[in-house]
Amino acid sequence: MTPVPAPDRRMKAAVWHGARDVRVAEVDVPRAGPGEVLVEVAYCGICGSDLHEYADGPHAIPLTEPHPASGSTAPLVLGHEFCGTVAALGPLVPGLAVGDRVAIEPNYRCGTCPRCRAGEYNICRHFGFAGLMGNGGMAEYAAVPAYMAHRLPEAVSLEQAALFEPASVALHALRRAGTTPETAAVVGLGPVGLLCVLLAAARGVRRIIAVDVSPARLRLAAGLGATELVDGRDADAGERIRALTGGEGVDAAFEVVGSEAALRTCLAATRRGGRVVLVGLAQEVSLDAFALVNNEQSIIASVGYRDTYPELTRLVAEQGLDLTPVVTSTIALDDLVPHGFESLLDGPGDQVKILVTPTRTERTDRMNRIDRMDRMDRRR
Amino acid sequence: MTPVPAPDRRMKAAVWHGARDVRVAEVDVPRAGPGEVLVEVAYCGICGSDLHEYADGPHAIPLTEPHPASGSTAPLVLGHEFCGTVAALGPLVPGLAVGDRVAIEPNYRCGTCPRCRAGEYNICRHFGFAGLMGNGGMAEYAAVPAYMAHRLPEAVSLEQAALFEPASVALHALRRAGTTPETAAVVGLGPVGLLCVLLAAARGVRRIIAVDVSPARLRLAAGLGATELVDGRDADAGERIRALTGGEGVDAAFEVVGSEAALRTCLAATRRGGRVVLVGLAQEVSLDAFALVNNEQSIIASVGYRDTYPELTRLVAEQGLDLTPVVTSTIALDDLVPHGFESLLDGPGDQVKILVTPTRTERTDRMNRIDRMDRMDRRR
Repeated sequence: MTPVPAPDRRMKAAVWHGARDVRVAEVDVPRAGPGEVLVEVAYCGICGSDLHEYADGPHAIPLTEPHPASGSTAPLVLGHEFCGTVAALGPLVPGLAVGDRVAIEPNYRCGTCPRCRAGEYNICRHFGFAGLMGNGGMAEYAAVPAYMAHRLPEAVSLEQAALFEPASVALHALRRAGTTPETAAVVGLGPVGLLCVLLAAARGVRRIIAVDVSPARLRLAAGLGATELVDGRDADAGERIRALTGGEGVDAAFEVVGSEAALRTCLAATRRGGRVVLVGLAQEVSLDAFALVNNEQSIIASVGYRDTYPELTRLVAEQGLDLTPVVTSTIALDDLVPHGFESLLDGPGDQVKILVTPTRTERTDRMNRIDRMDRMDRRR
Repeated sequence: MTPVPAPDRRMKAAVWHGARDVRVAEVDVPRAGPGEVLVEVAYCGICGSDLHEYADGPHAIPLTEPHPASGSTAPLVLGHEFCGTVAALGPLVPGLAVGDRVAIEPNYRCGTCPRCRAGEYNICRHFGFAGLMGNGGMAEYAAVPAYMAHRLPEAVSLEQAALFEPASVALHALRRAGTTPETAAVVGLGPVGLLCVLLAAARGVRRIIAVDVSPARLRLAAGLGATELVDGRDADAGERIRALTGGEGVDAAFEVVGSEAALRTCLAATRRGGRVVLVGLAQEVSLDAFALVNNEQSIIASVGYRDTYPELTRLVAEQGLDLTPVVTSTIALDDLVPHGFESLLDGPGDQVKILVTPTRTERTDRMNRIDRMDRMDRRR
């Protein structure tokens, strides 16, 4: 293991001050307190929720009332989809060592509420995200509770690990569907929808019907394992999906848009007794409860994830799963606003997942190069 | 086994001709065709759907297009909650004998559609009910496919068996909730809701919170195993239920009303990660999809039932379950309209389940007396 350089006392970080006011600035390197690790960040993905905080936040970011887990309010460092290398350990951190490469599962949890006790920490009463309710990973270093850090085996590159967080949302949605469906529809091909397609294929779903309004994203889905593509602009998309399955409907449909129209498409696409997994965040929706009952369908909400990092590690390390095709660009931390947020807000939708590389040490650059070579080797 | 008298060629039956036009009249005794049994009916319960057909039908009754399974159109004999004694066997009926006491599971099913092949015959493509889509059990005799007839052991009386059909709706709803909940709310205490309370208690649900607008029905629920009662007229009924569970919410809530208000009560009453089982038939409903996702709740529809008669038989025969407290009166077939339908339509809601006794043979009267004595014995 190469020794990791001691962190400088100052570092670059992307700090949210307000809507349209995210500043990449010099701040103090955080200290790893008791039970915490200091991570030298390799990559941090931009999530839709980061974009919402940038565009018209705050939504989840606390302004006045500190989040109980982090004790933080704005201004704070954005970014929850991150991974890196352990640079320092606070007191009382067993099972990790400086130099370990880690994927961060950025959810705070209290560990004591009824849902935490039942292992359902994704719906903890005091649930929150590092990078939204506390300082996150769009920085050279991040100090997080050690329970968030999952040590990576050699076979998992940091570029793969950078996608564990959004892939977890997709994996949890697939698990929420219960028995692995034979046939599935994925409605909405943002990063999570595309990762749903990819992971559905990896988990043995036989037919995966992908739906989106963007031809580019439909093509991308085809490369990730979608067996059929349906244009989401078609008002009868649900009926078209049903027709593709001989009139029966799919076993499970995944709503990854967050709209009443997409939910209706999912219900129309799903067979009697089938399941609609609701991942997207809609507001008030209207639905035909009579049809829902007569078709004995289920609407199963899915929020966040739990216990997903071990399965993702195994899929990447042992089954050669490649999550990185959803990455459409990798940018420097300095370019976060113009080439990250503004590109996602203004672009024609050809960006999917943008990774930010906050660190610029020689070591991380070298590791990135090794990661890329590893990946190319695996593809050959 | 007492020999069963050969049926007369004519019998009394309640025939639906149109809304507010149900005639108790003399009709031919049906013949048991190939694969069918002729049942001498002991009891037939009045279901809400019978009442709807009487009040403002047709809803499910075919007027012009014969149902594929029955080949019938109106006028036809109502009644699908029935049981009795096998009076004759058509050709090709193995496993049954004249004199067998049977509970009728009145669902037609094709046996060949994908759902039937998966064992989910309650959502068969050609699903229907004897007594709605074909001739039913509000008659002295009924000829039905032999697959509908479940032979009863000695320990199960015909009065218990008369409730197997509505109890099946409740049992299927409980099964649809998945893992047996520790805490449950039952919103709506019609016959199915009350049977949900009764069966939830029989299946080990620790706390059962019953909700209805009727104080009489709440009292009945308390006698059937409800541990707490909540007045459904309270606009904050959902919050009241949540408060009863220390602010957490119940594991599962059963919507047995069929209204948006009841669905909202259920969602408000249910914990994060919990399940709302939708049994009632509402029309278009509006709900807060954002809260649904953030609380990771599921809305699970439940329609009809499958494979429920064996468990009900076991619960009654081996665990002493008594379904009959939901019966508030037993009437003669001749009194169906004035003391059945009109009583349910006009009454102050003090009727719950009304049984009709179509047969008037000496034998059935004797069996009814024996049933009653058995039940009193068991209560002592």
